[in-house]
Amino acid sequence: MRNSTVILRAMEAARLHEYTEDMEHALSIDEVDRPEPSRSNHVVVEVKGAGWCQTDNHVIEGMWTEYVDQDLPMTLGHENAGEVVEVGGEVHTVEEGDTVICHPVMTCGQCRQCRLGEDMYCENVQFPGLTTDGGFAEYLLTNERAVIPLPDGVDPVDIAPHADAGITAYHAVKKATRELNPGDHAVVIGVGGLGHIGLQCLDAMSAVEITALDVKEDARDLADGLGAHHTVDPSSEDVPDTIADITDGAGAEQVIDFVGADETTGYAPDIVAPGGDHHVVGYGGHIHEPSQSLVDGEFAYRGTLVGKYTELQELVKLVERGDVTLHTTRYGLDDINTVAEKLEHGEIEGRAVIMPS
Amino acid sequence: MRNSTVILRAMEAARLHEYTEDMEHALSIDEVDRPEPSRSNHVVVEVKGAGWCQTDNHVIEGMWTEYVDQDLPMTLGHENAGEVVEVGGEVHTVEEGDTVICHPVMTCGQCRQCRLGEDMYCENVQFPGLTTDGGFAEYLLTNERAVIPLPDGVDPVDIAPHADAGITAYHAVKKATRELNPGDHAVVIGVGGLGHIGLQCLDAMSAVEITALDVKEDARDLADGLGAHHTVDPSSEDVPDTIADITDGAGAEQVIDFVGADETTGYAPDIVAPGGDHHVVGYGGHIHEPSQSLVDGEFAYRGTLVGKYTELQELVKLVERGDVTLHTTRYGLDDINTVAEKLEHGEIEGRAVIMPS
Amino acid sequence: MRNSTVILRAMEAARLHEYTEDMEHALSIDEVDRPEPSRSNHVVVEVKGAGWCQTDNHVIEGMWTEYVDQDLPMTLGHENAGEVVEVGGEVHTVEEGDTVICHPVMTCGQCRQCRLGEDMYCENVQFPGLTTDGGFAEYLLTNERAVIPLPDGVDPVDIAPHADAGITAYHAVKKATRELNPGDHAVVIGVGGLGHIGLQCLDAMSAVEITALDVKEDARDLADGLGAHHTVDPSSEDVPDTIADITDGAGAEQVIDFVGADETTGYAPDIVAPGGDHHVVGYGGHIHEPSQSLVDGEFAYRGTLVGKYTELQELVKLVERGDVTLHTTRYGLDDINTVAEKLEHGEIEGRAVIMPS
Amino acid sequence: MRNSTVILRAMEAARLHEYTEDMEHALSIDEVDRPEPSRSNHVVVEVKGAGWCQTDNHVIEGMWTEYVDQDLPMTLGHENAGEVVEVGGEVHTVEEGDTVICHPVMTCGQCRQCRLGEDMYCENVQFPGLTTDGGFAEYLLTNERAVIPLPDGVDPVDIAPHADAGITAYHAVKKATRELNPGDHAVVIGVGGLGHIGLQCLDAMSAVEITALDVKEDARDLADGLGAHHTVDPSSEDVPDTIADITDGAGAEQVIDFVGADETTGYAPDIVAPGGDHHVVGYGGHIHEPSQSLVDGEFAYRGTLVGKYTELQELVKLVERGDVTLHTTRYGLDDINTVAEKLEHGEIEGRAVIMPS
Repeated sequence: MRNSTVILRAMEAARLHEYTEDMEHALSIDEVDRPEPSRSNHVVVEVKGAGWCQTDNHVIEGMWTEYVDQDLPMTLGHENAGEVVEVGGEVHTVEEGDTVICHPVMTCGQCRQCRLGEDMYCENVQFPGLTTDGGFAEYLLTNERAVIPLPDGVDPVDIAPHADAGITAYHAVKKATRELNPGDHAVVIGVGGLGHIGLQCLDAMSAVEITALDVKEDARDLADGLGAHHTVDPSSEDVPDTIADITDGAGAEQVIDFVGADETTGYAPDIVAPGGDHHVVGYGGHIHEPSQSLVDGEFAYRGTLVGKYTELQELVKLVERGDVTLHTTRYGLDDINTVAEKLEHGEIEGRAVIMPS
Repeated sequence: MRNSTVILRAMEAARLHEYTEDMEHALSIDEVDRPEPSRSNHVVVEVKGAGWCQTDNHVIEGMWTEYVDQDLPMTLGHENAGEVVEVGGEVHTVEEGDTVICHPVMTCGQCRQCRLGEDMYCENVQFPGLTTDGGFAEYLLTNERAVIPLPDGVDPVDIAPHADAGITAYHAVKKATRELNPGDHAVVIGVGGLGHIGLQCLDAMSAVEITALDVKEDARDLADGLGAHHTVDPSSEDVPDTIADITDGAGAEQVIDFVGADETTGYAPDIVAPGGDHHVVGYGGHIHEPSQSLVDGEFAYRGTLVGKYTELQELVKLVERGDVTLHTTRYGLDDINTVAEKLEHGEIEGRAVIMPS
Repeated sequence: MRNSTVILRAMEAARLHEYTEDMEHALSIDEVDRPEPSRSNHVVVEVKGAGWCQTDNHVIEGMWTEYVDQDLPMTLGHENAGEVVEVGGEVHTVEEGDTVICHPVMTCGQCRQCRLGEDMYCENVQFPGLTTDGGFAEYLLTNERAVIPLPDGVDPVDIAPHADAGITAYHAVKKATRELNPGDHAVVIGVGGLGHIGLQCLDAMSAVEITALDVKEDARDLADGLGAHHTVDPSSEDVPDTIADITDGAGAEQVIDFVGADETTGYAPDIVAPGGDHHVVGYGGHIHEPSQSLVDGEFAYRGTLVGKYTELQELVKLVERGDVTLHTTRYGLDDINTVAEKLEHGEIEGRAVIMPS
Repeated sequence: MRNSTVILRAMEAARLHEYTEDMEHALSIDEVDRPEPSRSNHVVVEVKGAGWCQTDNHVIEGMWTEYVDQDLPMTLGHENAGEVVEVGGEVHTVEEGDTVICHPVMTCGQCRQCRLGEDMYCENVQFPGLTTDGGFAEYLLTNERAVIPLPDGVDPVDIAPHADAGITAYHAVKKATRELNPGDHAVVIGVGGLGHIGLQCLDAMSAVEITALDVKEDARDLADGLGAHHTVDPSSEDVPDTIADITDGAGAEQVIDFVGADETTGYAPDIVAPGGDHHVVGYGGHIHEPSQSLVDGEFAYRGTLVGKYTELQELVKLVERGDVTLHTTRYGLDDINTVAEKLEHGEIEGRAVIMPS
């Protein structure tokens, strides 16, 4: 493939042309120009694996138009890994042939937020798959500040979902573990794509008692095997009572909510220990709570976004150590709408990864 | 008075007999037994000043029954200062004749929360004025772990409101300042009893640009004189636009909300900088917000309660340094329902202090 | 034994009468008065296990006279666990018959340091075994703020050394883990009584790459089994070069030095990563370093003392979880000078525990 | 001058040809090539002000050869401010004509340390004036990641010393203030070039009681006017006794040592409160201390280097607010050896600034 790069500059990409609820026909496979480096730090990656994320469904539905600028048609895909095929003139940390995982955003490296290490707050950020063309395509344009070389033996297809799902879970868990002491209690709400990663990170990075909530039996079984000390089915058990039993009435110091529904955020006043946090990672619903309940319990709702570049480095280390393993299913680029449809109905096992090239 | 302690054991106290919306007849002045030390660390304080707090109105209305146990009739008053008149057998840090300010809660000193310094989370806490008899009375029973000797020259009447209003404001501000760097922006919502203290603490403890919001012109003028760099009238100005102008579009790193109404908590997604906090101190209303807005802005709603004993020590230092001054108006015990009524209608200037003895 | 408490008030205790280098005759077994509660929060513990510590040798040699006040004769022993046999009138968290581990110091619970949770800095601290009579005796006088009930099934003899060795190691490791991220490097210097506990805590509480240094092969083998990824023999390997190899030249973010000799503190400029810490736990020797090397490497020498009460609670949780196990050897009270002698010559395997009752 | 840039490419520079103790003939004014941008992010600054620093004397004496690579001849000068005259092809945050202050190091923006915001630890760092040509020249080559635009009305000559002296002092003080609470005690050792800045930062950023030590009466008078509550002359007063008096025997929570001599680091065990820090900023001498004294007092010696880029931004804000003012004296490039000589003998008032262009 690389021999033909000079001549063949077209490629296939799965693109969104208009916002829709119809997942079955959400994206179309178009032939588009293959990207080329136009700045000194640009990096072109041949995409080996691109994870499909709940956020892709939300983008298709138009849920992100209120938060970011999007020009349609746009190629989706923000969980990318692959092989470097071309680099700008001043790139010195990767070269052609390196396999890399891509932090989801391209940052400027100059603004105060970048200088503080806060990649997601970059004032000049570009977010392939959310604000520019993403990785559901044979090639992806990103920059040197986004790529992390993979350790030997790590398959880019297997690790791709960590680019977003992984560091989002890791980022929330890292914040939580900074507040946790041995013997404290942590609750993980939702053991899906993000939750099952978060659970493993929590187990590797702390010595706390972990309770996992999920309505699905399979998910609770998975949690059992990944370090949860207790599992709870919120559809049949009273969550506040159960957490009270587990914690001797004290509540959990940290709750990580990978669902973010009205019901799950509503648990906070009853299950978070005084001074604790309810981290909002999933964003399906709303928070409705009297100010007084936050005051009386002195707890916080802490919104949590994608993690930093350095956090993705740390997560890659956890993967290399064997502390975190991903459950993935592989699909071709042509199956992409099937994946969208399946996720909408909760029928994806583990994390779906598209293999565009 | 102290000469007669052995003989005369009755005293006057302003007590709540039933929950009511009628502030004019909320409390009755009863003759009750004067408290005596029954444990080795008990301390009896002759109350010189007892601040009236918005929370007293909320207690009268029954708003706290859902959060704590209350047996009526009960003497209200949780912002107390005065003179030590009797101590238990093992008290060694204060003695008869010392003037003291009382941290609002009596803690056990044994539970894990006490051992962590988290007085408000004590598993055996008693809260005079909220769960046991408080300071709108000639004498108050508290314990050695609650009292802080006053520096020379500090009048207990003047400092009393710091016992609760003061450390609540200080506690929130201290959390905020730990996250603030020189040149950052902080917003103070509400320049009333707590807000005007918080503003002064913020100014003394950091080098940030402060914006104060209040619908009252008097309050904004007060804020001007206490260190605010900008004042905003939310009834006539667009708050998000104004904060965007002041912060060059970046938002404020820390917002301290002394109102806690639906409208003020609703500012958060528009005015808090990414990674920042909206501290909920006041508790008039609700939070209603989509999870996605917390995620996208990566901000937190952080409930904040009364401060710790050590924080009251720190606040007394700020008072001693002249960094924080309180605006108070003095009333006799007999005027107590007038005070309740006035506060309900926003007619108290500064902070009202009852002088029971 | 307890039936006779009213009549028989004498007991045996191993006491130091004068400072000496002669370990073989260091302590004498005296018959002394058995302690009784004289304050409302006193607790008398029948000592089941009392760990022997390097510090006991240092006390015997007079090394602590410069730092604390000591009146000889004094009973040594500051790592105590046993059964509560008598309590003061207001003790409510333990009762006769409970098995407990004793935090090494008796604190007042009133001073600012106590209120901050800093037990070791208590302004009125008493340190049995260092400033008052300790646990190498049938009974020990301590107070309610020092005792922690043991989980079911934990033998006081097995856990006793955690009372000091354990929380000292835990305390240092906890500070280190707060600074560590997954994939970072930590170095443990000395895998003896404290070091082998610290190593296990580090492994349980973080996801870092651990290198253990010890001149003894047995100790390195032990380290291998307790979570060390690399072991180094400083007597045959060049320590800076080896650490550079292991860390790709970056140095270790955190070094925990359980030896504290001239040589081990001297490693810091060469093995600590920029911004990192060299925690000084052991105290055999000196630091001799040009200021410039601290400046250029921006590293810190952080002295670290015994941990807090709440940290002992956390360590007990780690023991209960099975994350930390102690290697102990048991001795009778009569063997105490043999133990002193053996430790002086490095001949104790694991941790020696005296069983006085 | 800028019209002639294409033709005239030579400039004057003060260069070190060999290490020497002879300050009077330390540097020679050479005619050298004027730098040009050779990478996309390069920035060439016409140097308006370049502060002379104690470190320049140390570089001349060869004290830094052990820590960094230096090729002589080399232009010294690492506290630079001036006007942008030429930029590389992808620079977008500054342009020709902007006045800027230069963070002392040129960083890569790619390595993990850069990504964490730790500019001084950059794996590919270049340090003009220490490892490459510095600012005692008409023009300086640096890069976009080093420059900070100045607020209107700030003269580059006045602010230049903040580029290194300023942020070094600020960096140490910021670390200290994160540990300080209102009413705590801080000690500033040495009120010279760095110390008088540090003192002002401390006063602006905290509400603590400040004690300043200096052997010079002028320096103590200056400290008085800049926020010190107490001043001490170590040549005539017993430092430990005086600090004990001031702190009621508790010691100072934070000590910032801008001298770093044997004597000043030796104060730590006697004047630092338990749990506190002795920040080593100056580097004239050595630390000689038994490990036991760090353990017993649980204090740290924390080496502290130049601050981060974001900290220089924060310091510029403090200057803009009027919280920090510099005492400077101006010199021409030809006077440079006179300045070196004078500083060696402690005869510079405030901070010397060279004006090369």
